[in-house]
Amino acid sequence: MEKTKKAAESLTIMTNIVLPNETNSLRNLFGGELLAKMDRCASISAARHCERRVVTASVNHVSFDHPIPEGGIVVLESKVSRAFSTSMEIYVDVWLDDPINQKKIHTNSGIYTFVAVDEYNRPIPIPKMVPETEEEISRFDAALRRKELSLILSGRMNAADSVELKRLFGS
Amino acid sequence: MEKTKKAAESLTIMTNIVLPNETNSLRNLFGGELLAKMDRCASISAARHCERRVVTASVNHVSFDHPIPEGGIVVLESKVSRAFSTSMEIYVDVWLDDPINQKKIHTNSGIYTFVAVDEYNRPIPIPKMVPETEEEISRFDAALRRKELSLILSGRMNAADSVELKRLFGS
Amino acid sequence: MEKTKKAAESLTIMTNIVLPNETNSLRNLFGGELLAKMDRCASISAARHCERRVVTASVNHVSFDHPIPEGGIVVLESKVSRAFSTSMEIYVDVWLDDPINQKKIHTNSGIYTFVAVDEYNRPIPIPKMVPETEEEISRFDAALRRKELSLILSGRMNAADSVELKRLFGS
Amino acid sequence: MEKTKKAAESLTIMTNIVLPNETNSLRNLFGGELLAKMDRCASISAARHCERRVVTASVNHVSFDHPIPEGGIVVLESKVSRAFSTSMEIYVDVWLDDPINQKKIHTNSGIYTFVAVDEYNRPIPIPKMVPETEEEISRFDAALRRKELSLILSGRMNAADSVELKRLFGS
Amino acid sequence: MEKTKKAAESLTIMTNIVLPNETNSLRNLFGGELLAKMDRCASISAARHCERRVVTASVNHVSFDHPIPEGGIVVLESKVSRAFSTSMEIYVDVWLDDPINQKKIHTNSGIYTFVAVDEYNRPIPIPKMVPETEEEISRFDAALRRKELSLILSGRMNAADSVELKRLFGS
Amino acid sequence: MEKTKKAAESLTIMTNIVLPNETNSLRNLFGGELLAKMDRCASISAARHCERRVVTASVNHVSFDHPIPEGGIVVLESKVSRAFSTSMEIYVDVWLDDPINQKKIHTNSGIYTFVAVDEYNRPIPIPKMVPETEEEISRFDAALRRKELSLILSGRMNAADSVELKRLFGS
Repeated sequence: MEKTKKAAESLTIMTNIVLPNETNSLRNLFGGELLAKMDRCASISAARHCERRVVTASVNHVSFDHPIPEGGIVVLESKVSRAFSTSMEIYVDVWLDDPINQKKIHTNSGIYTFVAVDEYNRPIPIPKMVPETEEEISRFDAALRRKELSLILSGRMNAADSVELKRLFGS
Repeated sequence: MEKTKKAAESLTIMTNIVLPNETNSLRNLFGGELLAKMDRCASISAARHCERRVVTASVNHVSFDHPIPEGGIVVLESKVSRAFSTSMEIYVDVWLDDPINQKKIHTNSGIYTFVAVDEYNRPIPIPKMVPETEEEISRFDAALRRKELSLILSGRMNAADSVELKRLFGS
Repeated sequence: MEKTKKAAESLTIMTNIVLPNETNSLRNLFGGELLAKMDRCASISAARHCERRVVTASVNHVSFDHPIPEGGIVVLESKVSRAFSTSMEIYVDVWLDDPINQKKIHTNSGIYTFVAVDEYNRPIPIPKMVPETEEEISRFDAALRRKELSLILSGRMNAADSVELKRLFGS
Repeated sequence: MEKTKKAAESLTIMTNIVLPNETNSLRNLFGGELLAKMDRCASISAARHCERRVVTASVNHVSFDHPIPEGGIVVLESKVSRAFSTSMEIYVDVWLDDPINQKKIHTNSGIYTFVAVDEYNRPIPIPKMVPETEEEISRFDAALRRKELSLILSGRMNAADSVELKRLFGS
Repeated sequence: MEKTKKAAESLTIMTNIVLPNETNSLRNLFGGELLAKMDRCASISAARHCERRVVTASVNHVSFDHPIPEGGIVVLESKVSRAFSTSMEIYVDVWLDDPINQKKIHTNSGIYTFVAVDEYNRPIPIPKMVPETEEEISRFDAALRRKELSLILSGRMNAADSVELKRLFGS
Repeated sequence: MEKTKKAAESLTIMTNIVLPNETNSLRNLFGGELLAKMDRCASISAARHCERRVVTASVNHVSFDHPIPEGGIVVLESKVSRAFSTSMEIYVDVWLDDPINQKKIHTNSGIYTFVAVDEYNRPIPIPKMVPETEEEISRFDAALRRKELSLILSGRMNAADSVELKRLFGS
């Protein structure tokens, strides 16, 4: 498949209000609810990039540093950060938008991997993604290191074969 | 805090049926919904271990290899795998239980980090956790490597200071 | 069908946190929400016992003596208490687990009857259940009295034919 | 409290459509979801009768004989059937209304007991209820037998003290 | 189709309690949630009138003058106000019922238009509706003016052709 | 209040997937669910414009011409179309985005009115809105006609006082 797409073509914006049912006993958004929203947003970016049905393959390390209160406006923005042969990495940024106090805080980011599947749930090829902005290029490069790390941690790649990671950890 | 607890004391079992609203267009459980259920299960283990309010600090790499169909019985089991000074790692295993076809499939695992907080949302100390079974000990040891990797990737630890990871990636 | 099963084989544990949407204006779990959770838990026990699709036939008297607050951890445990020819009784126990105050309170019990059905929704035979523990045996015996009482109250059995109940109420 | 009310004053009608999320794998309404709806309907009847906050005390035997399909119109009607000193019995009837095929089927009934509570969750007195129609009178009379049976089964009344039930079961 | 029906035959009463998840940060029912409930109630009236599957065609001006608090009892009552050839207008009244303070407040009304559709989603003819009470007749007459106004505003009717509206706005 | 804002400053994009629970028996999004989503999206635009708590005052005529199927991607975009002294009109556009078939269909629009309120739920002044694009100017002008029509229909303005509407309907 020779088709290529820009990162911007998969941009998905999902704005919503934190409902009471999504909060813990401190009245802040449950970490798990945010993970679910991020997955849903990322799945739309993935579908927009490859124009196929998609399913979540994995989620990378996500940290929750800033509580998001009940009634708060949460804005999720996701874009494909790199496409591999049959999988693609999606980067999701999350903001808490507080128009009353005129603040917009970046609460956290998440990185998801999706595969495109045919009607029998089998992986199919994915168009290449061409990054344009500085941030898109930086995330595109980091996506390769993350993929290698993931393959090593799951035992599907030998640590010695990763030039990038050897530079990071090696002598 | 001198108190210690066993891994088994935080065991939490969360059995449930996959509802239509939790499924994608292939009628399988959304990855994000499973992440949210795992977070909720893990938060109960965390609360049982430290006997305090807890909030999610981060979720580690989780992969979704096996689809879980609508109407399926999902079983989540979580236990504290290691307690650090003010954070604890929780390991969550997920099974698809199919009593009609007498199959029980391990679909995936997830690793969450929680912190215990006081009423002002500030981190507080956590009791030590003592692993007993072979699996608990193995996960306890791996938890330290994961924590170091997380600190290095977020720039809060120098790669050269991690003896464990240097052995994995270095020459 | 000669197959028999133990009560323990149908044990189902359903732990969860009380969400805001499940509470009344006193911020306690609605009785009806608890009935629905108990039904879902019982249906998994029933499916595990008979390895078939199951549907609720009836629910017995359930009382709500202890309020369960929002954010509380509710633990449901269900087991088949007796299997009849095409129906089975499921006993569900409910606890409020409060790890912060280190209390675990038995809030109530419920007794449900399920039938196993084929793909046309017709009842099918159910394996025998063999009780083992003292509590299982006691509940197994009581299940017969409850079934007779239910048949009498619905007019499908003559009160005079029930030896057990005549002893209870008779002169 | 000398105030009395008619059964009709507590009549509550709750019509709704069965949503996908409320159905089992046969696409019929879960028994437990119906129990929850009945509880909510009954709680409104109870509040209308006693003009106070109310909480569910217990639910009596309810059977599910007729499946209610997804998309079906469910009609619940509840009325107070008898008021005791600090508790009241509510009778809930359920119909499946199928205007396309011009059928209205009585699928089942449920009997709930509620107590009125003050702001500290303590039971408070309840107005008397005066039945008017033949059905209301018949249910009013039966409510006393049910209350006695419930007291006997829970060990709070001696079987020999119940004139009504002795007549039913005794020699 | 010669069949006619009375307005009363489509009367639908939908009583419910406002749940936490349906409220905004002032703990009052979201306007949008009420619109959704009104749509569901109206759709049942529409189905009862025409005995067919129905879909929402439009909603008319609805105002929200009176806040409905969390835990409040909302009563919706809907009836067909006029049937046209392939569409029908449904009038929905909403009350906040507060039995504790013995008040019942009319909070607002909404007017919805539905069409009956066959299995291919194509509009089909609808039985005539015969109003009986004074209010039904008044709403029946106003429905024609509303339909004309709607046709003019959407450019499907010439303003000069509406006798009713010319009288209202013209010289 | 002299402050003014541009229409673009209140732009809110709410992308989401249609869940099974939001669909009718034809597996298309309920009209009422869409009304609720539009209200939530509009409320965020309103809050962004006036930097205060806001509540829905009314919804204008909304028509549903194009079904939106389960699993479809719905995109809502809302902006303030005109600000009055204590109320503002919000215009919401809805698209069905189908990346697999590379179609994006404008399914419908809705017009909502919100008021900004202080902590006692009393209306407060709203900044002026300055339209910029051709579409924003066209909607800004139409907003005045809609407001007058609404005032006339509710009896709060005399039809003869509306120059705009007299031109539309009069001789």
